[in-house]
Amino acid sequence: MPASAADSAIYRNLFADDATAALFTDSAEIRAMLLVEGALARVQGQIGLIPQTAAAFIDRSSREVQIDPAALGSETATNGVPVPGLVAAFRKAMQAPEHAQFLHWGATSQDIMETALALRLRRVTEIWDERLGRLIAALGGLAREHAGLPMAARTYGQAATPTSFGAVVAGWGHPLLRHRDRLNALRPELATVSLGGAAGTLSAMGPDGPAVRAALADALGLADPGHGWHAERDRLGAFAAWMAGLAVSLGKMGEDMILMTQSGINEIRLEGAGGSSTMPQKQNPVGPSVLVALARQAAALSAAIQGAGIHRQQRDGSAWFVEWLTLPQLCVSAGRSIGLAQEMVERISPDAVAMAVGLDDGTGLIHAEAYTFALARHMPRPEAQSRIKALCNEAMDGGASLQELVARDFPDLDLSSAGGLGMAPAEALAFAEMAGA
Amino acid sequence: MPASAADSAIYRNLFADDATAALFTDSAEIRAMLLVEGALARVQGQIGLIPQTAAAFIDRSSREVQIDPAALGSETATNGVPVPGLVAAFRKAMQAPEHAQFLHWGATSQDIMETALALRLRRVTEIWDERLGRLIAALGGLAREHAGLPMAARTYGQAATPTSFGAVVAGWGHPLLRHRDRLNALRPELATVSLGGAAGTLSAMGPDGPAVRAALADALGLADPGHGWHAERDRLGAFAAWMAGLAVSLGKMGEDMILMTQSGINEIRLEGAGGSSTMPQKQNPVGPSVLVALARQAAALSAAIQGAGIHRQQRDGSAWFVEWLTLPQLCVSAGRSIGLAQEMVERISPDAVAMAVGLDDGTGLIHAEAYTFALARHMPRPEAQSRIKALCNEAMDGGASLQELVARDFPDLDLSSAGGLGMAPAEALAFAEMAGA
Amino acid sequence: MPASAADSAIYRNLFADDATAALFTDSAEIRAMLLVEGALARVQGQIGLIPQTAAAFIDRSSREVQIDPAALGSETATNGVPVPGLVAAFRKAMQAPEHAQFLHWGATSQDIMETALALRLRRVTEIWDERLGRLIAALGGLAREHAGLPMAARTYGQAATPTSFGAVVAGWGHPLLRHRDRLNALRPELATVSLGGAAGTLSAMGPDGPAVRAALADALGLADPGHGWHAERDRLGAFAAWMAGLAVSLGKMGEDMILMTQSGINEIRLEGAGGSSTMPQKQNPVGPSVLVALARQAAALSAAIQGAGIHRQQRDGSAWFVEWLTLPQLCVSAGRSIGLAQEMVERISPDAVAMAVGLDDGTGLIHAEAYTFALARHMPRPEAQSRIKALCNEAMDGGASLQELVARDFPDLDLSSAGGLGMAPAEALAFAEMAGA
Amino acid sequence: MPASAADSAIYRNLFADDATAALFTDSAEIRAMLLVEGALARVQGQIGLIPQTAAAFIDRSSREVQIDPAALGSETATNGVPVPGLVAAFRKAMQAPEHAQFLHWGATSQDIMETALALRLRRVTEIWDERLGRLIAALGGLAREHAGLPMAARTYGQAATPTSFGAVVAGWGHPLLRHRDRLNALRPELATVSLGGAAGTLSAMGPDGPAVRAALADALGLADPGHGWHAERDRLGAFAAWMAGLAVSLGKMGEDMILMTQSGINEIRLEGAGGSSTMPQKQNPVGPSVLVALARQAAALSAAIQGAGIHRQQRDGSAWFVEWLTLPQLCVSAGRSIGLAQEMVERISPDAVAMAVGLDDGTGLIHAEAYTFALARHMPRPEAQSRIKALCNEAMDGGASLQELVARDFPDLDLSSAGGLGMAPAEALAFAEMAGA
Repeated sequence: MPASAADSAIYRNLFADDATAALFTDSAEIRAMLLVEGALARVQGQIGLIPQTAAAFIDRSSREVQIDPAALGSETATNGVPVPGLVAAFRKAMQAPEHAQFLHWGATSQDIMETALALRLRRVTEIWDERLGRLIAALGGLAREHAGLPMAARTYGQAATPTSFGAVVAGWGHPLLRHRDRLNALRPELATVSLGGAAGTLSAMGPDGPAVRAALADALGLADPGHGWHAERDRLGAFAAWMAGLAVSLGKMGEDMILMTQSGINEIRLEGAGGSSTMPQKQNPVGPSVLVALARQAAALSAAIQGAGIHRQQRDGSAWFVEWLTLPQLCVSAGRSIGLAQEMVERISPDAVAMAVGLDDGTGLIHAEAYTFALARHMPRPEAQSRIKALCNEAMDGGASLQELVARDFPDLDLSSAGGLGMAPAEALAFAEMAGA
Repeated sequence: MPASAADSAIYRNLFADDATAALFTDSAEIRAMLLVEGALARVQGQIGLIPQTAAAFIDRSSREVQIDPAALGSETATNGVPVPGLVAAFRKAMQAPEHAQFLHWGATSQDIMETALALRLRRVTEIWDERLGRLIAALGGLAREHAGLPMAARTYGQAATPTSFGAVVAGWGHPLLRHRDRLNALRPELATVSLGGAAGTLSAMGPDGPAVRAALADALGLADPGHGWHAERDRLGAFAAWMAGLAVSLGKMGEDMILMTQSGINEIRLEGAGGSSTMPQKQNPVGPSVLVALARQAAALSAAIQGAGIHRQQRDGSAWFVEWLTLPQLCVSAGRSIGLAQEMVERISPDAVAMAVGLDDGTGLIHAEAYTFALARHMPRPEAQSRIKALCNEAMDGGASLQELVARDFPDLDLSSAGGLGMAPAEALAFAEMAGA
Repeated sequence: MPASAADSAIYRNLFADDATAALFTDSAEIRAMLLVEGALARVQGQIGLIPQTAAAFIDRSSREVQIDPAALGSETATNGVPVPGLVAAFRKAMQAPEHAQFLHWGATSQDIMETALALRLRRVTEIWDERLGRLIAALGGLAREHAGLPMAARTYGQAATPTSFGAVVAGWGHPLLRHRDRLNALRPELATVSLGGAAGTLSAMGPDGPAVRAALADALGLADPGHGWHAERDRLGAFAAWMAGLAVSLGKMGEDMILMTQSGINEIRLEGAGGSSTMPQKQNPVGPSVLVALARQAAALSAAIQGAGIHRQQRDGSAWFVEWLTLPQLCVSAGRSIGLAQEMVERISPDAVAMAVGLDDGTGLIHAEAYTFALARHMPRPEAQSRIKALCNEAMDGGASLQELVARDFPDLDLSSAGGLGMAPAEALAFAEMAGA
Repeated sequence: MPASAADSAIYRNLFADDATAALFTDSAEIRAMLLVEGALARVQGQIGLIPQTAAAFIDRSSREVQIDPAALGSETATNGVPVPGLVAAFRKAMQAPEHAQFLHWGATSQDIMETALALRLRRVTEIWDERLGRLIAALGGLAREHAGLPMAARTYGQAATPTSFGAVVAGWGHPLLRHRDRLNALRPELATVSLGGAAGTLSAMGPDGPAVRAALADALGLADPGHGWHAERDRLGAFAAWMAGLAVSLGKMGEDMILMTQSGINEIRLEGAGGSSTMPQKQNPVGPSVLVALARQAAALSAAIQGAGIHRQQRDGSAWFVEWLTLPQLCVSAGRSIGLAQEMVERISPDAVAMAVGLDDGTGLIHAEAYTFALARHMPRPEAQSRIKALCNEAMDGGASLQELVARDFPDLDLSSAGGLGMAPAEALAFAEMAGA
């Protein structure tokens, strides 16, 4: 595969998300940069910083010109940024030097690249927000449908007490509700124009600088930050951390799915699970495994991006490059996480029989806490706990279940309330409400 | 030093923050857990789940009892949580088994530990918020004072164009304004009670569970999440990422300070800089270096905590332990970052003469962009850029400054607007306003 | 807990290793630094760089003087290193200024700290090597004992084909054999003296510098690197990566144990597993969960230490501090990993009956590959694979096992070789040989 | 750009290395997998496990068949591995089902993929080893040429004492000598065949399994590990850590170059440094900045790969996928690091005049340690240190240099040995020897 599996024809379908990846192609990046150059000229023409005719010509050309990404490769390697090469190629393509000279007036490479990124992040977060909404609704539907389906809650892999499958699904969904809220708080931060000029002071635009920035923001539908922010990387750091947080929450869902599909557990089935090159029976939880892998990758990449916030002085090439080396990959992986989670939720089906077996493996140990509290109505709780613990050990040695042993030793004990699902069904339904399902 | 430099008598003053560290001691943790157990009994007594007398006795005892941390060590090693040992020790210390049996009724270890953590995080974030306010105000004062003090903006370490020291300071401060806003969005999320019982369903409390949770939240001044959330780690992940983001923004300030104190640059002085064991002249920027180191550490720890959000099923011991192994350290380091940044801001003083040297090293190259734009009023900009570039090369070869060369070749060119600070002074003052300085 | 759980009286037994932690205390560090200062004076006296009497006095005093770590805290905070404070305190304690002035002659703080660290790392790696030997031998014994005990091999959590428990244990052990070899390649690298003086050139010692370094190395039993290496951090980075690699291999063993102890799987039992504060029946795999958590922590800390190898110029305070903030914790965690793995191996016992259930859940699907190859002797393999796959689906729908279905459709097929353990027993025994068990 | 900048036509020349990237393309991966399948059939034919004719046919076809990567995308997405799709496509392409059925006999996807990876890693490490040799030799030449060129050693960015440029270069080179040794220890580990069959026991090959593995290893020139190692990821973890260590050592060189090119320092020039889109004078140290960025990325990716060593049971899809998501990128970045470092060494030239200015900024403070030791021959060293420190402060206040002040107060002091380069020149030459330069 290439450097990234998401860029590989073999692996793309496994690890990449088309809608997200479409915003992180060479041509999408060039298109967005041209859009910014065009809008910049347009507003500078309106404000009178450059001639109106030149502005109109540049603006129009920016929508028509075709720049070959490969043609920028050599200059990018020298300059460390694609913008000088892009500006030169665009100027040449315009075939009107008298207008072309006003292209990129008073801006710096970083302004163009980061405003172009803001445009693409605005779009990608819009896509994700919409998808998250559908994913949450699907989880809500699943939680509602199985609100009362009993299964074993597990702590440390051990059957702990009963819960419901709907409550488990709600536990996958709650963090997504919060992640969506967090995304919506972040989106305006990301959709912010960058225009600082050579080193943040906009000096080449004279007193018109702030007006140009405001007008550019307005023209592109982005926020005007009110100042240059080349070296302020906290917004991008927060976004990276958000993506990692999201991927991790979906990775938790993936882990639970892997554990629930294990041979000998089989609490869920995943339609269309993966096959093996040599074992005909295999039904591998490939999708859930990808969710987990994307989560681990996202946590690592996010750390690199956050670290790149230690950005020196007015521009730190090394810190900025770290973002280039990691952010597109992180976005594509985050997009894939959401898309794949949607697929998984559609393909999951719980197996009530297997879940019942998980609840009652013949030992009845899962009810130990419930019996303790029942018994604690008749004796001090530490004593009740110790009596039940002794019966647990007896049950584990085999022969009789905990229910039978409790009935043997405490024949009058009322166990009617034991073994219940507690708040699980209600919590599943409450989540379904919140999810709009 | 011990496992953590922050726990070392030698290194504590360098790497730890007293106010934060005070909330992450064994005794602070025990105290908070006892407070939760006491409040739980109190509200369970009020609701009628346990006898009022027992509730009152437990509540009162929880404020009086002394538990020796070391006494919990052995049971903690066995059980993986300190709560069983704590409950046993507390029960024994009460010397009233008839009341003591109602302690910890229907709760699980995680409920107690995480509600106790919420109480401490509420306090620590309150301290930080207040400190961040003072730090921002101090930066605002500095930005205002030096709004117009010229210095070289540097990109890739190279003098780019003029800016002002006040604008540089504003660049340190802006992210802090946003981090403070983000913290205030996070604080209520962190200040959330956890009460789910054995595996999240509150089953041992019967139908009273939700009422107990609501009352406990109320009693402790925390939010009621409305459901159990043992395995939902996104809030903690977001908090870890916030701490990393903050430390990184302060690390950027540290890096800038290190660069500005370099021999041969000397743009700032830091009062009370560090000495060497063998070089009498050394004035090491120790504080800024610590800021950078804390930022790198924070980014790594945050990644571990975010990764631990891949928390399996209803409780995942391994993922939970990762948080224990990293969160306290991250909090102490974040607290230290803020405190140390405050110290640094008090100790910084710019050297206007050195800054002037940075602006004018005799070559005048820093004005190249400004001359280009001045010249571009008289010829196409690409031509202007190419003419100035040729003069830059001549200036670099020595003999005459760029100013002199421009005057030689373009004697009539109006350079009056060149070399200005652009928006830098205005942006410094605008930040000072926002910072309330 | 304090910044580090390993420094907490409550959590120490869970997360720290006494033998390793003993080398990372304030007093152990001071003791090691004094040892280096004493040896330095001694060899400088022998070479004639400082007076013999002074040298002897300093050397003797270095073994006797008591320095209170807390007394160094304040100066360490100012200077960023404990050595100036230590040298001052030591000089004062000697009460012989005429001799004391020759203390620390021509050395720099980093020389003393890092040579002192080398002494402690030499000891700690010696302890670990010896323990790794015993851990490997214990795994070898386990592999030998259960070389032929059948259990299901699992890929993606799905029963794949039969293997043996001994082979699984061998899979835990093989990486340890290699880690031990890698450690033995690393140990001499770590046990290297550092003596470069102020900035690596040893200039204050005149032409005697190299001889002093060689003699110091000899006196301390360390290697002489032949040059100053303050800013060459690759050895430490390699060591950190080694610790992470080791912890990760032990974390894999921990994960397998967690999965094998799951309710419904129960393939192994762990004596003395952990209890719950509310569920009397719980047998939590606490130790394996700690192994996994330490592995995740180690990977994060190792990344921070490796990153700190980007160490600027002749000393980079910020990069160096990152090591201080992470290395001791990483060492203590690595030490704990090894010690805890040893405990776990002693406490594990396989359950042959549960393993048999894992192999034969009534469906017989685990033999699908074997049947395919048996059938492929009589028809093209793709056809055999497709025929068996159809029978697998039939078996999954219930009613009859794959064995029965194969016997129904292919009554003459010889299945005698199917279902075997393949090379598993032989590989278990081969590992046992290599492990010396 | 695409997910990875290394896969972008715009950025490839900046961030990718052609020779390395050529081994990480879809077609290189398919080619290598076919080679393994062909060799497997060949040796199985020789051993008699499959018919000789079929073996010969498969082997020949494996060298001729063309498989379109895109054709494998869909099946890879379902199965999580490309091998089932590849085997099917290969079988179909052979148009000889009677032979084709013996393809992939008894192997599993992981065997094919990882043996194919081993082949490519053998080649890539061979390329790197050779390049490292040339890089080290170039550094050796530079160190030799400038062994005695004086410049200021800097600690914390502060001028500390004199050193030589050659010694600085030697400090870049020494870690590379060790990295190369470590690579050579690792290379045989990486060049190891994987053949375990479905779950590591080779059961489908019957008693011939070990002989097939040995013969396959022999045929491909790889090592025979003697057992299946699907779940033993320590070799790959060690390789990832090695790449991170290497990139970090080269990142340190990059950082030093960035600092040395700073305006106002200018100790080195880099031919062909990068330009700006708006500032004609800019000479940005783009290459060194890329070296630093690659180092940060490598440390993050290596942590993810090391963490993936926590690989569950006999195959852990999620852990394995993490490697796919990170290893190719890490290899391409490591390859780029070495190649770019070679370019940088060719383009660096020191500026002796600027270096002299760095040594003598008029204050003479850099000689403070040397004067102290000179003075300490006439008075106790603490007193000497304190006297010199006072003069340092006087010099910093301006008016006179430290030399003048020392001459004023201690007119008879012999300063002839002060200000020397210490061992720097000798160490530079010694490195040049080791580097074979």
